[in-house]
Amino acid sequence: MTEQELLDPGRAPSRAGVLRAAGKIAELLPQTPLLPLEIEGRTIWCKAEMLQPIGAFKIRGAWHRLSDLTEAQRQKGVVGVSSGNHAQGVAWAARRLGISATIVMPSNAPRAKLAATRALGAQVVLYDRAAENRDEIAARLTQESGATLVHAYGDPWVIEGQGTAGVEAAAQLEARIGRGPDRIVACCGGGGLAAGLALACPAADIFIAEPEGWDDVLASLEAGEIEGVPDLSYPTDCDALQTPRTFPINFAVLKARVSGGTAVTPAEVGAAMRLVFEKLHLVVEPGGAAALAAVLSGRVEATDATVVTLSGGNVDAETFVRMIA
Amino acid sequence: MTEQELLDPGRAPSRAGVLRAAGKIAELLPQTPLLPLEIEGRTIWCKAEMLQPIGAFKIRGAWHRLSDLTEAQRQKGVVGVSSGNHAQGVAWAARRLGISATIVMPSNAPRAKLAATRALGAQVVLYDRAAENRDEIAARLTQESGATLVHAYGDPWVIEGQGTAGVEAAAQLEARIGRGPDRIVACCGGGGLAAGLALACPAADIFIAEPEGWDDVLASLEAGEIEGVPDLSYPTDCDALQTPRTFPINFAVLKARVSGGTAVTPAEVGAAMRLVFEKLHLVVEPGGAAALAAVLSGRVEATDATVVTLSGGNVDAETFVRMIA
Repeated sequence: MTEQELLDPGRAPSRAGVLRAAGKIAELLPQTPLLPLEIEGRTIWCKAEMLQPIGAFKIRGAWHRLSDLTEAQRQKGVVGVSSGNHAQGVAWAARRLGISATIVMPSNAPRAKLAATRALGAQVVLYDRAAENRDEIAARLTQESGATLVHAYGDPWVIEGQGTAGVEAAAQLEARIGRGPDRIVACCGGGGLAAGLALACPAADIFIAEPEGWDDVLASLEAGEIEGVPDLSYPTDCDALQTPRTFPINFAVLKARVSGGTAVTPAEVGAAMRLVFEKLHLVVEPGGAAALAAVLSGRVEATDATVVTLSGGNVDAETFVRMIA
Repeated sequence: MTEQELLDPGRAPSRAGVLRAAGKIAELLPQTPLLPLEIEGRTIWCKAEMLQPIGAFKIRGAWHRLSDLTEAQRQKGVVGVSSGNHAQGVAWAARRLGISATIVMPSNAPRAKLAATRALGAQVVLYDRAAENRDEIAARLTQESGATLVHAYGDPWVIEGQGTAGVEAAAQLEARIGRGPDRIVACCGGGGLAAGLALACPAADIFIAEPEGWDDVLASLEAGEIEGVPDLSYPTDCDALQTPRTFPINFAVLKARVSGGTAVTPAEVGAAMRLVFEKLHLVVEPGGAAALAAVLSGRVEATDATVVTLSGGNVDAETFVRMIA
């Protein structure tokens, strides 16, 4: 696979693809709960994706992608690129389908994520997040082996799969309050989840939350073209959202559908994690708390039918304790 | 209400009552998830009751009890007795039904539980856990006002309501593995949950877990008659399970149905809380982790269709951090 093929996968993600993926996911996994959380007298609805078997929504896109591979493709294996949650999603789906998986992961990924990915039977290839280009490493690995690259966000199947969280949340909110979401606030790294949710819920306004220093998608939307993160060594605890730049197929959807968003500070992320601990009794990782942090900050307003993604819970105990202190 | 009336509520809890309660709960609340957890190659199934709106299963029994009160009874209010989770259950149900609620709580209850009970609009009356008899205080309060006492476990409605967790879990496990539970391990304070689960699931063997020093139900089962906790000042973090003695209507069910159980140490409880944090991304309070701790200890064996209650998640951050360290 050349870099050009990676940048242009030959098709755009579609709402029909999201709905097809939702049917596959419904057969595979129970729905994650949509939990009410009262913030200053207003109830917002939290999609608890840390309760997925791998502790994050990434299982959705990985399953949609891998289960659509042909028998010939399955024989040659898959290569994933991820700080950890997509890694586990690909490894989980690969093990279930009997496909061999290699995952390119940053050497400073949380220990819990590295261990969990290996425990799922995947081979892990480490790289230096500040000095190496992970997409180049992955492209080289796929060229050598003929394996299929399963990108963490720049892939139409992956985007469609992540969107299934929106299909579920819309039905769950409808059952609780009689209507679907008019606003969705999504944690945003490369924009796979946000783009998927936008396709899943055409009537909802989409807002995104990125960590301070890694708000390249917000910058790209403002500039009207894709811009990368200026400083790849900028420190953040939101490892799940540390993506150097979004991809054209994500950006096309986000440009058309995102209404706004904000970059959240470490203190705001910590406050959101603590609130989720106290009120929902859930463990949310820093990157998974960004959307709620955006609402708590007041810079993204909630409506009476707002869904917020709590997108993952894979966090080391030491980091968790420090963040909620 | 005299002490005699408290000890003999006039009817025993029944399986029919559990099923009627399950119908009421199904209209009120979404099911809590039943989550798989792999322990040494065997999957056990965890009922995640900390995801209830009040963070514990106690909302079930309180709702069944309060929603069955007559209009005349509702006018006179209710009195509850609880270290915190039943308190919140009664307060939640009372607010929803427009009933005034007074809760007798120990002065050393977790701050989070005291604050949450007051936030739900209940009046809180504090007592000294080591020196005062909470049931006497509650009986006096009901005699003065004509309010209905809603005991935390010695009440047929409360037992039936708690059993609805078993009705849900049985259906969820059936959907996942094609059969219901053959074994249920329950956290046990006064025995309301364990008795309710026993009635809900007549084909399952029932095991109970109590905290070290507060294993009066296990001692009672061994003695063949109700025995109280010998030392009410024995220290434990499992505040939710600190009950001085079980009641006759609980004991009648438990004596007939409990197959075994164990007392768990603080270290075993902490290990269970940490495992739930790491693998399920849930916050379980010490008392809510006792059943899982019993399985992890090896003293209660799991089968291929074992359900374990994770019964609550209301824990102060400081305690949580100390326990998972």
